[in-house]
Amino acid sequence: MVLKIMSSFKMESSEINANDAFKIGKGYNEMLPFPTAINENPKDQTSKLSLTEKLKNWSIQGFEHHNIRDELNRIMSDKSLFHGDVNLGKEEQRVQTLKQLLAIAQGIFDKGLVQITDLREDPSKILAMMDIVSQFDDDSLMTKLIVNNFLFGAAVFNLGTERHHKLLPEIQSGRLLGCFAMTELGHGSNVRSLETTATYDPKTNEFIINTPLRTSTKWWIGNAGHATISSVFARLIIDGKDQEVHCFLVPIRKSNGIDLLPGIRIGDVGAKFGLNGVDNGWIQFENVRIPATNLLDRFGSVEGGVYSSPIKSPSRRFANILAQMITGRITISFGTTRTLKSGLIIATRYASKRLQFGPTSTGPEIPILSYPTHQLTIMPMIASAYAFDAIKVYLGRRFQERTDEAEIHVLASGLKAMISQYTTVSLMELRRLCGGHGYGSYSRYGRLIATVDVGRTFEGDNTLLLQQVAKDLLTQFKKEYSGNKFTGTLKYLGKNTSLLISGMNPLTTMRSDDAHLLSFQFLLDSMEFRSSKLLIQSAQTVSKNYKQTKDSFAAWNQSLEILIHLAKAHTETVIVTKFIESINKEKDIEVRSTLKKLCQLYGLYIIRQDFEFFRNSNYLKKGKAKAIIKLVGQLCSELSQNALVLVKGFGNEEHLMESPLGMEDGDLYENICKQVGGNFTRNNYLNSKL
Amino acid sequence: MVLKIMSSFKMESSEINANDAFKIGKGYNEMLPFPTAINENPKDQTSKLSLTEKLKNWSIQGFEHHNIRDELNRIMSDKSLFHGDVNLGKEEQRVQTLKQLLAIAQGIFDKGLVQITDLREDPSKILAMMDIVSQFDDDSLMTKLIVNNFLFGAAVFNLGTERHHKLLPEIQSGRLLGCFAMTELGHGSNVRSLETTATYDPKTNEFIINTPLRTSTKWWIGNAGHATISSVFARLIIDGKDQEVHCFLVPIRKSNGIDLLPGIRIGDVGAKFGLNGVDNGWIQFENVRIPATNLLDRFGSVEGGVYSSPIKSPSRRFANILAQMITGRITISFGTTRTLKSGLIIATRYASKRLQFGPTSTGPEIPILSYPTHQLTIMPMIASAYAFDAIKVYLGRRFQERTDEAEIHVLASGLKAMISQYTTVSLMELRRLCGGHGYGSYSRYGRLIATVDVGRTFEGDNTLLLQQVAKDLLTQFKKEYSGNKFTGTLKYLGKNTSLLISGMNPLTTMRSDDAHLLSFQFLLDSMEFRSSKLLIQSAQTVSKNYKQTKDSFAAWNQSLEILIHLAKAHTETVIVTKFIESINKEKDIEVRSTLKKLCQLYGLYIIRQDFEFFRNSNYLKKGKAKAIIKLVGQLCSELSQNALVLVKGFGNEEHLMESPLGMEDGDLYENICKQVGGNFTRNNYLNSKL
Repeated sequence: MVLKIMSSFKMESSEINANDAFKIGKGYNEMLPFPTAINENPKDQTSKLSLTEKLKNWSIQGFEHHNIRDELNRIMSDKSLFHGDVNLGKEEQRVQTLKQLLAIAQGIFDKGLVQITDLREDPSKILAMMDIVSQFDDDSLMTKLIVNNFLFGAAVFNLGTERHHKLLPEIQSGRLLGCFAMTELGHGSNVRSLETTATYDPKTNEFIINTPLRTSTKWWIGNAGHATISSVFARLIIDGKDQEVHCFLVPIRKSNGIDLLPGIRIGDVGAKFGLNGVDNGWIQFENVRIPATNLLDRFGSVEGGVYSSPIKSPSRRFANILAQMITGRITISFGTTRTLKSGLIIATRYASKRLQFGPTSTGPEIPILSYPTHQLTIMPMIASAYAFDAIKVYLGRRFQERTDEAEIHVLASGLKAMISQYTTVSLMELRRLCGGHGYGSYSRYGRLIATVDVGRTFEGDNTLLLQQVAKDLLTQFKKEYSGNKFTGTLKYLGKNTSLLISGMNPLTTMRSDDAHLLSFQFLLDSMEFRSSKLLIQSAQTVSKNYKQTKDSFAAWNQSLEILIHLAKAHTETVIVTKFIESINKEKDIEVRSTLKKLCQLYGLYIIRQDFEFFRNSNYLKKGKAKAIIKLVGQLCSELSQNALVLVKGFGNEEHLMESPLGMEDGDLYENICKQVGGNFTRNNYLNSKL
Repeated sequence: MVLKIMSSFKMESSEINANDAFKIGKGYNEMLPFPTAINENPKDQTSKLSLTEKLKNWSIQGFEHHNIRDELNRIMSDKSLFHGDVNLGKEEQRVQTLKQLLAIAQGIFDKGLVQITDLREDPSKILAMMDIVSQFDDDSLMTKLIVNNFLFGAAVFNLGTERHHKLLPEIQSGRLLGCFAMTELGHGSNVRSLETTATYDPKTNEFIINTPLRTSTKWWIGNAGHATISSVFARLIIDGKDQEVHCFLVPIRKSNGIDLLPGIRIGDVGAKFGLNGVDNGWIQFENVRIPATNLLDRFGSVEGGVYSSPIKSPSRRFANILAQMITGRITISFGTTRTLKSGLIIATRYASKRLQFGPTSTGPEIPILSYPTHQLTIMPMIASAYAFDAIKVYLGRRFQERTDEAEIHVLASGLKAMISQYTTVSLMELRRLCGGHGYGSYSRYGRLIATVDVGRTFEGDNTLLLQQVAKDLLTQFKKEYSGNKFTGTLKYLGKNTSLLISGMNPLTTMRSDDAHLLSFQFLLDSMEFRSSKLLIQSAQTVSKNYKQTKDSFAAWNQSLEILIHLAKAHTETVIVTKFIESINKEKDIEVRSTLKKLCQLYGLYIIRQDFEFFRNSNYLKKGKAKAIIKLVGQLCSELSQNALVLVKGFGNEEHLMESPLGMEDGDLYENICKQVGGNFTRNNYLNSKL
């Protein structure tokens, strides 16, 4: 039967060259123009173009550094090196990422445009650099750069003393590649319980580094393939006494950069969900001796065989050691927002060009961006990206000023957790909105998703970071009532927690007119009310659980649900507050009115996300809640008319987009076809020798 | 300075063999036993073991077919062929998946254990087969098997007539590989607007197949690399008249299975987020002639140059053609639930073995499964997996009985959309709960996530499927009020929509005692109330929008938010209802009491997810809502004590788990180490020639 069908197959045309494959057809150019609502008239378009420039400038206030951005764009415009090739194997990707790292180390750091010492001198330069690097491909490069310069490099800078700082020029230029060996097979979050030991030998004035158990194996260590030296977190044992975890410099490879030194075992942890350009490995130590001077001794030193530390309390000392992680957290918040923007640009441009269904079954079709289901998903994400920009600018400024480091630390932790979670969940939905074309590697979504996902885990597990935020809030709460006052971003809590004893004003809880709901005052009041109420309830919950258990560890754990809720609520409060402050300060009318709408959508959207709280606390009556739902829909519909302008305002570099679905110019389908390969190769077949 | 550090490095031990890497240490075996609450006493353990067997049997009622399962397990126990190797390239994966397909085609289909004709004769055999296949690796095999046997094969079987059915034995044995060329570059969801043409030539009694535009290129076609024949969806043009889309058999490759026939162009669409073992390709046709008998002519035929169809209405005719997609949708619901189970087994077993933090900073640590944040995430997912099992058994039975195909179609569409969305979102969170170890490819999460994600897109985009559900509900609603009555799974709507005119009973909306909230009656009432209320509101919304626009396309689109909500609510109502029915019928006390708790958690959990509706419709007062939140927490905590038993009750085959984090036996860390590679290879280095 098969043969019969086949033999009855008749040819009309002669054999066609496969290279002609995409020459057929007229494709997208023949399609309908977009509804005028989306493609405004040319005159408006000109003024919109300048709006996008203004929005871009707004979003990078304080970390512009155009010279750094320009130089990076120049370096990264070499597409023979800077391209996201989905067909490279793991090892090839790692070599490519290393080359990229060296290009930036030499082109940016060696030329003095950015320095590791800018961690203290001018952090905004680091933020500007990362703002470009994080737009590229899957963040393997960004991660490797952070690991080498801002984890390993920062360990030397922040935990070391003058004698170690001499290494910094070598590190940042890529001539000395290092890794940051903290995490172990058995310990990730609970780093204070790491098992690797560094035992002091008074006879030789050396430390002996050991991996006592299999679970003590250093694990996930980035740069472990290429590093010749490692910053190793290990328990400092002296005179039989465990002085807890400190950081040591341990050479691991010979000068050829490949062969291991004696006593060192290093292996590959293998493929990962994403970031396969990063050479993550495991490391074990067997009686590896290092001179005592290799202890990074800012917070604890050994002189003449005696241990001493400027900080008495071991837990406070360790907190100081860990505080350096803040740079990683901040760059994750910044980089992840860029990834969210990349995903949004792709989905929005695709949705404006992709037509599907129309009023009749055979007639013209409409862009999928016209469907409310699409708008309700995309537009709150665009608003969120702008909200994150506002808080990024604020965080960047605080990071630069370095006043009240504890407060910045808490804020950076909360933002890293919230932004990475939001972005991961959002990108999964954006992939879905792009259908099959979103599933192809050419769309870039797979890489974007796998990249941001790990942002929820590394540099501090999100659940843990949110607990740090909650812990700080409760500590400040206690202080408030013992006379000290809330300061900085916590100030609003003092005002509200005392007010909360009085009941809700029934007129306010029922007011549902647009003017009220769209006012910044309502958004602020809602946010502040929620955080304050949750703070009081959290304190009560922990205290009640403690009374029952007489065990502070158990009491805290039993209260985790409300504590995490509190941390999220507070972080969102700070985002909304800083977004509003930024808008109120903005002088350009067009920028201000655009951002105002985005802020209204963002605020109402996050209130709606937590109706469970707002309705059950009686803050919103039924009618008011329904009015909010309606307004969210209206704002999404209205803002979607300008969606293309809004995503262009993100200011991503077009040459780093690397997705045919997300290019500003060109025929969507031609862009896709250009990226897709030709014939199946012979390697796809069982009898490939044919 | 580097050299100084390095030269001061002293050796004590001699060079260590890298193969000894994992011989150090005592690892996990030295760790603490789990709290007794989780590892019940040995006596209980025995009875629990039998509970897991009983739960497994409960979940596969009606599609047991142990002979099929056993034979598949035997075939798939050949680990030289059936292994999920993360290091294979795209082409190698495709060859491997083809070999796996052929092993099953020959071992199962050729031996008559399952047949394509079982689509009508005994669908439960297909479900039993897929229940094993879907546990393996990343679903490339499952997808390729569905494409060849149940999309291409089903097209021949369902759309063809006797003369085509002779191909079935060739197809199912893998001797004739085929593809299902429906989707085009420019059309996915709106398949009625496909552009490929099949023009009838009366002179030769042939059809001429053409790709008129670039956007008409067939795209994402699975098996396009290996198929020698394709079922092509194209517009049937006869006498200059477009008779809309029909399906045609078009030979595409020469008998060597590699070289293309004249007029055919095929290429590779390249790497994808997941399912890289499937050879998805693009296909173009240029004046390809096929005999008129190659039209699959069950719903439309050409005899003597004249077109005729048993179904007059083109839209109804096309609906009949598309109805065959149901098998794909059902297998996605079944397969995706298995993927959810795989993810849950991995996360639960990992969380029971992974210890992190404890009451003191230096003392013993506790399993992360003890943290409420963990329990609140995992336990509702476990309950959902059991709920999905209940509805799977029901759907399988209805699929087998084939009464009221339209109702089954709607149910299958809703379930595919809900289960694939829930599973995708859940797996992302489970990855997060496994931290860094979840991010390694060895955990399997990357593959699981990328696999289920596309389940939201293929075989019908979820948003579109939910619209089909809503459309059917509104159609039945109209009928109800014109005299016809709701039937089958819709029956409850008739009861409620009339009751809704009367107000809520204030005593019920406020009742918040455990007995009431945990009763099946409360869960059912809540579900039915929501669907009924949303149905009335949907009808009102569409009607109001129609009055304003006088345009049914616009009116429908403007109502999308509530329509999608309605479809989800109805699908969840059916799930809860069938779960409860199954529990009430269950005779084994232990199984019944276990499932009852899971059903309570599932029901209260989905009510909580939609507090926006339940609170704003006044169905739940504040106090009642708060009581539900508390109960959800309690149930999660209580059920987590038996989490290991519950996931074992899923009945996944241990030999198909393929994740060191998720094995029932063995030391967690030893399992991981066994899977992870050794040294970095020379390919990781710039100067790899060294």
